[in-house]
Amino acid sequence: MLVQKYVDMLEKKNIIRILSEFATNRGNEIGYDNVFDFSLGNPSVPAPQAFTDTCIAMLREKNPMELHGYSPTLGIPYVRQKVAAYLNQKFGMNYTQDHIFMTSGAAGALAHAFRLICNEGDEVLTFAPFFPEYHPYVDLSGAILKIVPPNTEDFQINFEAFTDMLNEKTKAILINSPNNPSGVVYSAKTLEKLADILKEKSKHYGHEIYLVSDEPYREIAFEGVQVPYPSRFYEDTISCYSFSKSLSLPGERMGYVAVNPACRDSKTMIQMCGQISRGIGHNCPASMFQLAVAEHLEDTADISVYERNMNLLYRELTALGFTCLKPGGTFYIFPKALEEDANVFCQKALKYDLILVPGDSFGCPGYFRMAYCIDTNKVERSLPALRRFVESEYPR
Amino acid sequence: MLVQKYVDMLEKKNIIRILSEFATNRGNEIGYDNVFDFSLGNPSVPAPQAFTDTCIAMLREKNPMELHGYSPTLGIPYVRQKVAAYLNQKFGMNYTQDHIFMTSGAAGALAHAFRLICNEGDEVLTFAPFFPEYHPYVDLSGAILKIVPPNTEDFQINFEAFTDMLNEKTKAILINSPNNPSGVVYSAKTLEKLADILKEKSKHYGHEIYLVSDEPYREIAFEGVQVPYPSRFYEDTISCYSFSKSLSLPGERMGYVAVNPACRDSKTMIQMCGQISRGIGHNCPASMFQLAVAEHLEDTADISVYERNMNLLYRELTALGFTCLKPGGTFYIFPKALEEDANVFCQKALKYDLILVPGDSFGCPGYFRMAYCIDTNKVERSLPALRRFVESEYPR
Repeated sequence: MLVQKYVDMLEKKNIIRILSEFATNRGNEIGYDNVFDFSLGNPSVPAPQAFTDTCIAMLREKNPMELHGYSPTLGIPYVRQKVAAYLNQKFGMNYTQDHIFMTSGAAGALAHAFRLICNEGDEVLTFAPFFPEYHPYVDLSGAILKIVPPNTEDFQINFEAFTDMLNEKTKAILINSPNNPSGVVYSAKTLEKLADILKEKSKHYGHEIYLVSDEPYREIAFEGVQVPYPSRFYEDTISCYSFSKSLSLPGERMGYVAVNPACRDSKTMIQMCGQISRGIGHNCPASMFQLAVAEHLEDTADISVYERNMNLLYRELTALGFTCLKPGGTFYIFPKALEEDANVFCQKALKYDLILVPGDSFGCPGYFRMAYCIDTNKVERSLPALRRFVESEYPR
Repeated sequence: MLVQKYVDMLEKKNIIRILSEFATNRGNEIGYDNVFDFSLGNPSVPAPQAFTDTCIAMLREKNPMELHGYSPTLGIPYVRQKVAAYLNQKFGMNYTQDHIFMTSGAAGALAHAFRLICNEGDEVLTFAPFFPEYHPYVDLSGAILKIVPPNTEDFQINFEAFTDMLNEKTKAILINSPNNPSGVVYSAKTLEKLADILKEKSKHYGHEIYLVSDEPYREIAFEGVQVPYPSRFYEDTISCYSFSKSLSLPGERMGYVAVNPACRDSKTMIQMCGQISRGIGHNCPASMFQLAVAEHLEDTADISVYERNMNLLYRELTALGFTCLKPGGTFYIFPKALEEDANVFCQKALKYDLILVPGDSFGCPGYFRMAYCIDTNKVERSLPALRRFVESEYPR
C-alpha cells in the first residue's frame, strides 16, 4: 500500500555508493589510509576559518530570535539582495533580490527548477557524461530525462545528436559546467552555439526551452581557465548554485536559484518556487547559514589542493598511456579505460586498492571517474599503485 | 508555459499573511508596540542559551569537515539514534534509528509522510479546526484533504461526522494535538476511540489507514495537562515533530518523522523517505543543527511565558462573556466570536488595533484565533483594548 515509485527507487543499485562501501570495508581490513578511494565527490578541505568565525560571532551577538527565526519562504531578503549584487558584479548581470530564491543546495535548486517549468511528460535533455542524481531530480518532477550521447573528442556538446533529439516536448536543457564527471568547462563558443539553437527552436516550437544550469563547481576552475556564465548567453536561463563545494559546506544544504531577469515572468517564477517549497514542506534553508554565507560570497575554502591533485593524476595518467582530457575545474577526472568495458577495468583496479567509478552510470561507457577531493599525500601514494595496476593488467 | 498549479497557488490569499502585513503597516503608523498583533504563530522566546553554547562549542572544537559534511539522506545516524532513545524513554516506545528520518521541521515531515503513503486521488481526513498549511502539504502530494467538521463542544473529535466521511479511499488521518488553533489537547479517550475506529476500518477496507500525527506543540502543555502520545494508541502511526517551537528554532528547519516500529514495513518506509528527499532535492536538514539538537532533546526554550499569556487572555475573555475553551497547550486560543460572521468581528477589532484571525480558514467559521506568542507586557496592554472593543461594539 506504500507508494510504489519510491519502493522501486530503493531497489536500484547506486554504483558510487557500492564502491564507497567497498572502500570503507576494505579500509577496515587494511586501514583506510591504504585504500585509494577515488569514489566520492565530497569536499576534502575545511570551510574557511573566516566562515566559522562569522557563525560564532552571529551566535554570540545576534538576537537568537532573529538568527533562528523564520526565514521567508523565498529566503531572507538581505541575503537574496547580496547574492543578486554579487552575481551582477561578477558576471555583469542585472538581478535583483526578486530573481533569487534560496534553496537546499544545487539539488534543491534543480528540483525546484524542474517543478517550475515541467508538466508531466515534458522532456529534459542533458549531455553525457552527466551526474546520475539528475535522474531523481527530473524523474520525480514528472518530466523525462533524456541523455544526449557524449562528444568524446573534447566533452563539449555533441551538437549533431542534440539537434536530432530536440522536439516539441523538450522543455529544458540541463547543463553542468565545470562538469561532473569530466572536469571539462564549456567554452563560450559551445554556449553561444547552444544558445543559438535554443533561440531558434524555442521560436520554432512556440514555447520557451529553458536552460537549467547546474553550477556547484563554478568557483573550482584551474589555472588559466575562465568559466563562462551560461545565463550571459541565453535569456531563458535558470542558474542553480550550491555553496557545498566552494565553501565546503555540503551538509548545511545551502544554494540558490537565480532566474535571468530577461526571462518572461522571471519574478513570478521565483514566487512560484516559494509555492513549490511550501508543497514539499521545505520552506527555506537554515536561516543562520543563509545569513552566514551572505558574508562570504566572495570566499572559498582552500580549493588549490584540487588543482594540485589534478596535476599529479593527469601527469601520471597520460604517462601511463591513458586517453585523458585535462580538467579545467571540479575535482574529477574522466579518463578512457584501458579496455572496452570500464566495469571490468574498475573491477580489476580493486585488486590494487584503487577505487575507480565506471562511466556507465554517467552515460559514458568505456570511461571511468576519479574524484580527487582527497589528501594530496594519498594521491601521491596512489600513483605507484596505479602504475602497478596498469603494468600488470595491461602490459604493452 | 509555467506549471499552472503553482501559479494558481500564488493567487490564493492567505488571511494570516494579510493580517500580519496589516499589523506591520499599522505599526509603521503608530509604533508596532501599540499594535496588539495576535496574528502569527512565531515563537517569542529565544532559543536556550545552552543550545547557543553547544553550537559555538561545535564550531570551535569540531573538525569542520565533520560538522559541515554531508549528512546521509536519512539524517546523521548518531542523531537518529538519540531521537529514538529519547522517544523510547519518554513515551515507552521501541524505536531504533531505523524508524527515524530527519526532516526540515514538521512541514517537511508531513510532506514526506503523505508522499510515502498517498497515491493520486487518495483521501486524507483532518479535523476542524485545522492548520491551513495542511492544504499544500497534502494537495501537492496528489492526495485530497477533506475536513471533518468540528466538535465545538470541546474541540475533541466529531466522531459522527468522521465515521460518515471514512471510505475506501481514506489513506490517512491527520491529527494535531496540542492543536493549532484551538489549543486543545486530545484526551487518551479520544485517541483510544479514534484508534478503535481506524483498526476496524483498516480491516474492513483491507488496507492500512495511517494516522499522521503533527506534533510541533508536544512540549508546550500547561499546568496539569498530559499530552498522550498518539503512536501509543495506534500502530500505523507516523509521528511528525519539529524543534521550531520547543527550542525556538523555526528558521533552522529541524524536525523528524518517527514511524511506529509495529507498522508493517516501518523500516522500508524510512528508507523510502530518503528517496522522496532525493527527488525533492532536499537530501537532509543542516548537519550542524542536527548535531546540536541531538544534545538538547530534553530541553526547551522558556515556554512558561505562553502559559502566563494564556491565563491572562483566558481570564479576560471569559470575563467579557466569550465562549472559550481553556487551552491545554500551544500558544493559541480560539474563542467564539460575538457575532455570527467572525470575519466581520475581526474586521471591527482592527479599529482597536487588535489583530485577530477569523476561524474560517481553519475550517471553523464563527470563531477566531489569537496567537499569544508575544510579550506578556503587550498581552497585558491589550486587555483594555479588548474590553473597549467588546463594550463599544457589542454592548450587553
